[in-house]
Amino acid sequence: MPEYKAPLRDMRFLIDHVFDFHGHYAALGATDASPDMVSAILEEGAKFCENVLAPLNRSGDEEGCHFDNGVVTTPKGFKEAFAQYVEGGWHGVAADPAYGGQGLPQSLGLVLSEMIGSSNTSWGMYPGLTHGAMSAIHAHGTEEQKATYLSKLTAGQWTGTMCLTEAHCGTDLGLIKTRAVPQADGSYAVTGSKIFISAGEHDMSANIIHLVLAKLPDAPAGTKGISLFIVPKFHADSGERNAVHCGSIEHKMGIKGSATCVLNFDGARGFLIGEANKGLNCMFTMMNHARLGTGMQGLCNGEASFQGAIKYANDRLQMRSLTGAKAPEKAADPIIVHPDVRRMLLTMKAFNEGNRALTYFTAQLLDTAHLSRDAGQRQEAEDLLAFLTPICKAFMTDTGLEVTNHGMQVFGGHGYIREWGMEQLARDARIAPIYEGTNGIQALDLLGRKVLGSQGKLLRGFTRIVHKFCAVNAEHAQLKGYVLQLNQLNQEWGELTTQVGMAAMKNPDEVGAAAVDYLMYSGYVILAYLWLRMAIAALEQGDSDFATAKLATCDFYFKRLLPRTATHRAAVEAGSDCLMSLSAEAFAL
Amino acid sequence: MPEYKAPLRDMRFLIDHVFDFHGHYAALGATDASPDMVSAILEEGAKFCENVLAPLNRSGDEEGCHFDNGVVTTPKGFKEAFAQYVEGGWHGVAADPAYGGQGLPQSLGLVLSEMIGSSNTSWGMYPGLTHGAMSAIHAHGTEEQKATYLSKLTAGQWTGTMCLTEAHCGTDLGLIKTRAVPQADGSYAVTGSKIFISAGEHDMSANIIHLVLAKLPDAPAGTKGISLFIVPKFHADSGERNAVHCGSIEHKMGIKGSATCVLNFDGARGFLIGEANKGLNCMFTMMNHARLGTGMQGLCNGEASFQGAIKYANDRLQMRSLTGAKAPEKAADPIIVHPDVRRMLLTMKAFNEGNRALTYFTAQLLDTAHLSRDAGQRQEAEDLLAFLTPICKAFMTDTGLEVTNHGMQVFGGHGYIREWGMEQLARDARIAPIYEGTNGIQALDLLGRKVLGSQGKLLRGFTRIVHKFCAVNAEHAQLKGYVLQLNQLNQEWGELTTQVGMAAMKNPDEVGAAAVDYLMYSGYVILAYLWLRMAIAALEQGDSDFATAKLATCDFYFKRLLPRTATHRAAVEAGSDCLMSLSAEAFAL
Repeated sequence: MPEYKAPLRDMRFLIDHVFDFHGHYAALGATDASPDMVSAILEEGAKFCENVLAPLNRSGDEEGCHFDNGVVTTPKGFKEAFAQYVEGGWHGVAADPAYGGQGLPQSLGLVLSEMIGSSNTSWGMYPGLTHGAMSAIHAHGTEEQKATYLSKLTAGQWTGTMCLTEAHCGTDLGLIKTRAVPQADGSYAVTGSKIFISAGEHDMSANIIHLVLAKLPDAPAGTKGISLFIVPKFHADSGERNAVHCGSIEHKMGIKGSATCVLNFDGARGFLIGEANKGLNCMFTMMNHARLGTGMQGLCNGEASFQGAIKYANDRLQMRSLTGAKAPEKAADPIIVHPDVRRMLLTMKAFNEGNRALTYFTAQLLDTAHLSRDAGQRQEAEDLLAFLTPICKAFMTDTGLEVTNHGMQVFGGHGYIREWGMEQLARDARIAPIYEGTNGIQALDLLGRKVLGSQGKLLRGFTRIVHKFCAVNAEHAQLKGYVLQLNQLNQEWGELTTQVGMAAMKNPDEVGAAAVDYLMYSGYVILAYLWLRMAIAALEQGDSDFATAKLATCDFYFKRLLPRTATHRAAVEAGSDCLMSLSAEAFAL
Repeated sequence: MPEYKAPLRDMRFLIDHVFDFHGHYAALGATDASPDMVSAILEEGAKFCENVLAPLNRSGDEEGCHFDNGVVTTPKGFKEAFAQYVEGGWHGVAADPAYGGQGLPQSLGLVLSEMIGSSNTSWGMYPGLTHGAMSAIHAHGTEEQKATYLSKLTAGQWTGTMCLTEAHCGTDLGLIKTRAVPQADGSYAVTGSKIFISAGEHDMSANIIHLVLAKLPDAPAGTKGISLFIVPKFHADSGERNAVHCGSIEHKMGIKGSATCVLNFDGARGFLIGEANKGLNCMFTMMNHARLGTGMQGLCNGEASFQGAIKYANDRLQMRSLTGAKAPEKAADPIIVHPDVRRMLLTMKAFNEGNRALTYFTAQLLDTAHLSRDAGQRQEAEDLLAFLTPICKAFMTDTGLEVTNHGMQVFGGHGYIREWGMEQLARDARIAPIYEGTNGIQALDLLGRKVLGSQGKLLRGFTRIVHKFCAVNAEHAQLKGYVLQLNQLNQEWGELTTQVGMAAMKNPDEVGAAAVDYLMYSGYVILAYLWLRMAIAALEQGDSDFATAKLATCDFYFKRLLPRTATHRAAVEAGSDCLMSLSAEAFAL
C-alpha cells in the first residue's frame, strides 16, 4: 500500500499564494479561520489521516463489510477510528455552532475531506453522508427537527444517509414507489425498498438518521410528487426501534469498507422535512454538497496513486536511459528516467494539482455563497457554483480514474497485485463517475440546465473571469504564449456553446449528443486557467524547486493535456445524427 | 453476468465478405480449411464456449484459485471444462499434424480463441500459454524434444508455461538471476525464482512443461547472455518429480481463475532449447504469438461487455427521450433512446468490430508467413506482422479497457456490483495493457525498433496498402469523403514519423516521449482503413439491417473516434522537453 502523506506543501501553496484564503476569510468575517487555525487543521488533520485512517485502507478493502441477519459490521478498526475522529472534534469542523459545530468555513471542511478521502475513501463515506444529511436538515428542517437531530449528528453520536435509489430507478426519481401515508399524530408511515444506500446500516454510531424520498398518497406523478422524510433507525424521543431494516449489502468492485445497503421500510415512522412534494429540491441541497465531495474522490484516489507511483518510479531499477546511464553504479536506472514513465507521472501530477486547485476555487465560492453579507456577491457565487458543480463531479472523477490507471501502469505487473494497493485505488475510483448522478447526467445538467437553460449566462459568468485574467496577463514575460492559448480557447468555448445551442433549438437530442464532450472540454479549459494562476503564483515565489516543478507541470499540461480539447470539440461538432440513426434493434447486429 | 453469444454473424461477415478467408486458404493450399470446416469450427466452437466456458466465468472469479502447500486448485468446473475441450479436439485445431494436431491455419485458431477469451478469459489462459510453449518448442526444439513434448502438449495431457519475470525484473530481462549449470549428462541444473507465471501450477493436466529463461555460468552480461530451458514438472522419461515448486499464488485485481504463480527452481533438471545465449530470440517466438493473443483479450472483454450493455440498454427504463416518449406505454423509455447512452454503445461497437477486423487481418498475415510457398510473400507478411503486433497488443487492450468501462457506465450503479458481471470484465481487461510487455514497451518496440529501426520501411509496407486502397476508392459514391480523410491521415502519418525520426537523431529520448501517442495514432488510422473495408463490403451486400448497422458504425467511427488522432498528434509533436526538464526529486514536490 502506498504510504499516504498529506500534500501539505501544495495545499499551503494554494491557500497562501494562489487563492489567498486568509484575505478571503477576513473579507467574509470568518475570523475563527485564522492562519493559526488553518495551520492546525492542516497539520493535525494530516496526522489523523496518515496515522489512523491510512493504515485501515487496505485491511478494510480485504475484509470488507459483514452482513448477518440485518446487522452490518464494518471492517476492523473502522469503528474505533470513527470514535477517534469524533473525539478529536473533526466531525463538526464546518458545522453550525448552534448545534455544537466549530463553525469554520466549508472550504476548510473540504480541505480536511481531501485528506480523509485520500487516506481511506471507504471510511470517508460514513462522515461524508452524515455531513450531507446535516446540511439538508439544516436547510429544510423545522427548528424542532434541527434541535432533535443536528446536535447528535454534529457530535457524531448519530450518522446520516440519503435514500433515493430504488431497484427500478436511480436517475429517474419520478418513478419511485416508496409511499408515505399520513398518520393521526402528524407522522408518516413509510413503506418501500431502497437500494445502494451508503452507510445505510453499520456499527459506527448509536443511531442512523435516514433522509428518504417517498410519495404521498395524493402526490402528483413524476418528480413533482416526491417528498422528503426523516426516518430514524431509533426514534429520538422514545429510543424505540423503527421499522427500517437492512435486507442485504452489495458486493462491489471497490469501496468495500463502505456498507452499500438495501433498506426495507415497512411502515416505518417518518417525519416530513420541507414542503410536501418539494422533496427533490430539498434533496438537491444534499446532492450539490455530495457532488463536490464525490468529485473530490477523483482527486483523493489520484493523489494516493501518485504518491505510490512516484516512489516506485524512483525505486524500481529497469533498463538504461536512452541518453546514457543515469545511475551507472546500479544494475539499471530507476524507471523515472524513461520519458514514457514521466508522461504517466506528469499526467497524474497535472490532473491532481489542477483538480485540487479546482476544488479550492469552488470551495471558496461555497464560503461566499454561505457567508457573504452582500446579496449580489452571494448570487454570483451561487451561479458559479451551479455551473462548476457538475464539472467538478464529472471531470475530476473521470480524470481521477485515468490517474489511478496510470498509477497501476507505472507499477507494471505489480500494479495488478492486491498487495501493492495500486489496483485498490483504481477500483475505489471507479464508483465516482457513476454515483451521485452519473457523469452523463452531470453533463446534461451542465449543458442543458445550467448553460443553455440560462441562455449562456452561467457560462459567461466564468468566461468573463478568464477573459479578465487573460487581459491582465496578456504580456506576461514568461507565460504570454499560454495566456494567448487560454484566451483563444475561452473564446472558442463560447462559440462552441452558441453552436450547440442553435442546433439544440431544432433538435433537443443535440444536447445529449454533445453533453459529455462539452463537459470534458470545459474541464480542460478551466484547468488551463487554474494552471496559469498557479504558474503565476509560483513565479511570484521566486526561484525554488517547488516553483520549478509547478512551472514544468503547467508546461506539460498545456502541451500534452490541453490539446485534448480538439478531440472533444470535434465530437461536439459531430452532432447527434451519427448517434441517432441506428435503430435500437440494429445495435446488436 | 451478461450471457455470451458468439458474434457469428460479424465473424462470418469478415470471413466471407471482407477478408475472403476461403480464397486466402485456397491460395495457401490450406485445403483442410474448407468452408464447411470453417463453419463447423464457428458453430461447434460457439456452442462449447457458450455452454461450457461462459457459465464458469463468474463463479471462477468469485472462487479464484486455491493454494495449499505447493498445490494449486483451479475454480470448480475448470478442470472438467479443460477435459471437455481436449476431448472435443479443440486444443490441437491449429497444431502440427505430425504431433497429433489438426493442422488448420493459425487464423482459425485465433477465431476460436476470441470465443474462448470472451466467454472466460481466465480459463483461456491455460490453453493459451500451452499454445505459446508449443510454438516455441516447435520452432526451436530438436527433433527429440519435439517428439518428447509436442504430442502430449497437443493432446492437452500436458500444459505449458513461459517463465521470464523475476521479482526484480520484468521488462529488463538482462537482469535475470536464474542460473543453469551444465551437468555431466548434458542436462542443466536450473536454480532461481520466477514470478507472475500464468498457469505455473494447477490441477488441469498431468504435467506442466516450463520454458525458462536462465543464464549459463559463462554467459555474457545482459540480454545476450540469456538461454532458454525446458524444465518439466515431471520428467518425460522417468516420470520423476522435478525440483520446481510453486511457492505461492498472487491475489490480483482480476483474472482470478488464472493461477499466477511464484515458481521456485531448486537445481531443477532442465534441457537447453535452441542455441545457448540466444534464449531471448527463442522466447520471442512465443511472445509474438502471445502478444496477438493478449491484444485479442481487449476485444474479448470488450465484446462480452458490449453484449451485456446492449441488452441492459434495451431493458432498462429510465427517463423519456428529449424528442418525445419512444415507449409511451411503458413507465419510461429504454435508455438506448438517450444520445449519451448511444455514444457509449457505439464507441464499444466501433472498437470491438474494428478490433476484430484488425485481428482477422493480422491472422491472415500469420497464415501467409507460415504457409505461403512464395518467399517474397512470406517476407512481406513477416514485415507487416512485425509492424502490426505491438499495435494489436497495445491499441486493442487500451481500447478494450475503455470499452469495458463504458459497459459498466451504461449499467449505472449496477455496473459496480459484482452480481451483474460488468465490473469483472473491466477488472479482467485491466491486466492486458500490462502483461506480455506493457503497452509502453509495445510502443517503444513499434516506434523505435520497427518503424525507425527499419528507416520507415515497415511503416511504408502498411501505408502503401492504405494508399492503394484510397486510390481505388477515391471516387466511391457513398464513402469518398471518408476515403479522402483516410488518405490525408495516411500521409500525415508518414510526415509525423519523419518528424519524430529527425528529432530522435538529435535526442534519443524523443522516441520514448512520442511512442505511446504514436502507437495510438497508428491504431486509429489502421482502424479507419479497416472500417472502410467493412463499409465497402457491407454496401456490396446490398440493403440489410446488418449493412445499415455497419455503415452507421463506420460513420460514427470517423466522426467521433478518429478525431482523437489530433490529440495524439499534438502530444507527439510536443516533444520530449516537457517530459524531461523536471528533476526526479522535483516530481514529488
